[in-house]
Amino acid sequence: MKYSSLLQNLGTETAFAVSAQAKEWASQGNKVYPFHLGDINLPTPENIVEATVKSIKDGYTGYCPSEGIFPLREALANDVGVKRGVDYDPDNVAVQPGGKPTIGKFISSILDPGDEILYPNPGYPIYESQIEYQGGRAIPYSYHQTKSGFDIDIEKLKDSVSDNTVAIIYNNYQNPMSAESSEKEMQDIAQIAIENDLWVLSDEAYFEIIYEGNAKSIVSIPGMKERTVILYTFSKKFAMTGWRVGGSIGPKEIISRIAKFNVNAESCTTHFIQNAMVEALNGDQAGSLEILKILKERRDVAVEGLNAIDGIDILTPRTTFYLFPNVTNIMKRKNIQRVEELQNGALKQANVSFCTRDHFGRAQDNEAEFYIRLAYSGISTEDITEGLNALKNYFEY
Amino acid sequence: MKYSSLLQNLGTETAFAVSAQAKEWASQGNKVYPFHLGDINLPTPENIVEATVKSIKDGYTGYCPSEGIFPLREALANDVGVKRGVDYDPDNVAVQPGGKPTIGKFISSILDPGDEILYPNPGYPIYESQIEYQGGRAIPYSYHQTKSGFDIDIEKLKDSVSDNTVAIIYNNYQNPMSAESSEKEMQDIAQIAIENDLWVLSDEAYFEIIYEGNAKSIVSIPGMKERTVILYTFSKKFAMTGWRVGGSIGPKEIISRIAKFNVNAESCTTHFIQNAMVEALNGDQAGSLEILKILKERRDVAVEGLNAIDGIDILTPRTTFYLFPNVTNIMKRKNIQRVEELQNGALKQANVSFCTRDHFGRAQDNEAEFYIRLAYSGISTEDITEGLNALKNYFEY
Repeated sequence: MKYSSLLQNLGTETAFAVSAQAKEWASQGNKVYPFHLGDINLPTPENIVEATVKSIKDGYTGYCPSEGIFPLREALANDVGVKRGVDYDPDNVAVQPGGKPTIGKFISSILDPGDEILYPNPGYPIYESQIEYQGGRAIPYSYHQTKSGFDIDIEKLKDSVSDNTVAIIYNNYQNPMSAESSEKEMQDIAQIAIENDLWVLSDEAYFEIIYEGNAKSIVSIPGMKERTVILYTFSKKFAMTGWRVGGSIGPKEIISRIAKFNVNAESCTTHFIQNAMVEALNGDQAGSLEILKILKERRDVAVEGLNAIDGIDILTPRTTFYLFPNVTNIMKRKNIQRVEELQNGALKQANVSFCTRDHFGRAQDNEAEFYIRLAYSGISTEDITEGLNALKNYFEY
Repeated sequence: MKYSSLLQNLGTETAFAVSAQAKEWASQGNKVYPFHLGDINLPTPENIVEATVKSIKDGYTGYCPSEGIFPLREALANDVGVKRGVDYDPDNVAVQPGGKPTIGKFISSILDPGDEILYPNPGYPIYESQIEYQGGRAIPYSYHQTKSGFDIDIEKLKDSVSDNTVAIIYNNYQNPMSAESSEKEMQDIAQIAIENDLWVLSDEAYFEIIYEGNAKSIVSIPGMKERTVILYTFSKKFAMTGWRVGGSIGPKEIISRIAKFNVNAESCTTHFIQNAMVEALNGDQAGSLEILKILKERRDVAVEGLNAIDGIDILTPRTTFYLFPNVTNIMKRKNIQRVEELQNGALKQANVSFCTRDHFGRAQDNEAEFYIRLAYSGISTEDITEGLNALKNYFEY
């Protein structure tokens, strides 16, 4: 009896270790300020809950099609298309048990061993894990800090395209940096994809977590809809992270292949939840707007609290529920070499729990600055204020 | 832009085509008698529904651990262990979104390209698909019809073990044949696994769909618990096929690897459903007993109806909700060469829809007899009687 040698290439989300550490510290009687969670401590909107209860009672409890029920594929095609200014129809949609399954299934649909996929780093760690587990080469592209936020290093990205490149993973409204592309940056990425005939996985998990103005999808650029699979999830917008429902949206030819992976992997996504998601999309949006309003209040309190710390200077991102402050000055002042040490110290000395850059893909050689990631989705404004005051004390001395 | 060449090895469940065909025929105004469905047209027990509604309202809507919530892992370890006479603890359990995910993740945990896995054929088609998609060699073992049902061809199975064999997939209480191992047969399989140091995937989806007497698991044989992963599902026992919740149960070392695939594939299984499954296992079992009672009534009516057809002689299986009659004589009499032709004829001329042997893995060279599979889980006793009367007319003339 042996294990597969391929397991050595399978990564994980190391952020779970931070959760475990925070839980352990809390179990010792400490009040922990949880900035590490990408989860939302708000209830799912009532109309969605009621639609779900009704769906169960109406008997939507048996198998349903692997690609998803028709009414939900129709509702998603319409909602996602209208918000991005493109036309989709139900054949462009395969329902998934969450946002994450789209990553693995997209890669499985297009990758042969040895192929290269460009992916954002820092970024969601499952990109790197799935590319490498499936025998591909994960080629990171990076960001640099600017006066207005974080910009993708387009020149490096362009230089990284090789004859073996098959796709770019693009996560506008980005986790962990809350980075947002300018029109120019999005055009540049589209141009690279088109010129090199690449697939694009557009991870749009935070597309509707926008506090000011409008979101734009790369699929709205001519030539992109034909080569892009959108990762859609209900998790963030409707505070439904634990429900596990989302979708893959893209050209019919790849969506039918992704749906074939559904047949092999899990048969279908929970039937009555799918049925209720039609209400989530087409019904009253008051619940979702309220979630966004609360998150925005938290963002403003968190940005203010961070900027009150000597050595931290952070902008107010328009999107996601993450903040990604540069802590290089703090570490110099405290004479700390590794950002993990800062993270441990903050937990033990200030009861503040957060992730660091190291939880979002392997750090690259040329990184000179240190960053931490604070999520404000799982913590009240009162606790944000208290926690960041405690952090200020720890960071400043 | 290209697709992965590995997709050529990915199979599917061709039975879905039968569903589509039946639906199409029904849409033309025909009443279809649905014997093709492995689904259950009975409601999920009320106490489970109530526990689910309560879990949603109690706020179990956020992320939970990828390996499953502790109370459910604890309840499953206890329930599965007690019913099989072995000790499991929560670390032996990884919760899954259904029964099916255990197949792919078990194979991923142990298989390297070129390794061989022995699997039952006829059998659940996803075994063959997942083994071959993941680069393994799927080596079928077969059954032969006896006076008491279907027996595994143990000699052939033994001869099929090679230096490259890493696992046996074993599906006692078998789909599609409703085959059940004798004590001797189960011992023989255990011995082959132990002597050759093989893993075993024990697909126990129908372990609790037993109408008389008790079920036995191969894990209860000394030396087997250490090398066996059980595929557990809530789908059949509780009429919950569309809920998508199940588990992988086995040695801690492989379960932790399977849980790592959970992190990469789907984050977690629906939180509030997991919470409700504790009630399903530990609460009132009246609902499940009622489901079993109804299925048993249907079985008896279906067996009687089939045996009333000249040329069909079928035993009463003690398990599953499938019947697998030999239709070789029928086909001879009707001068039909391919079983698919018989299936099409039954739909068009008798409005009876069923699957055939061909929907359960690639037919092997030496198969001289023809079989069809009728499921009685998704059809009332009245419709079973009506449908089989119509089938009698078609089969006999």
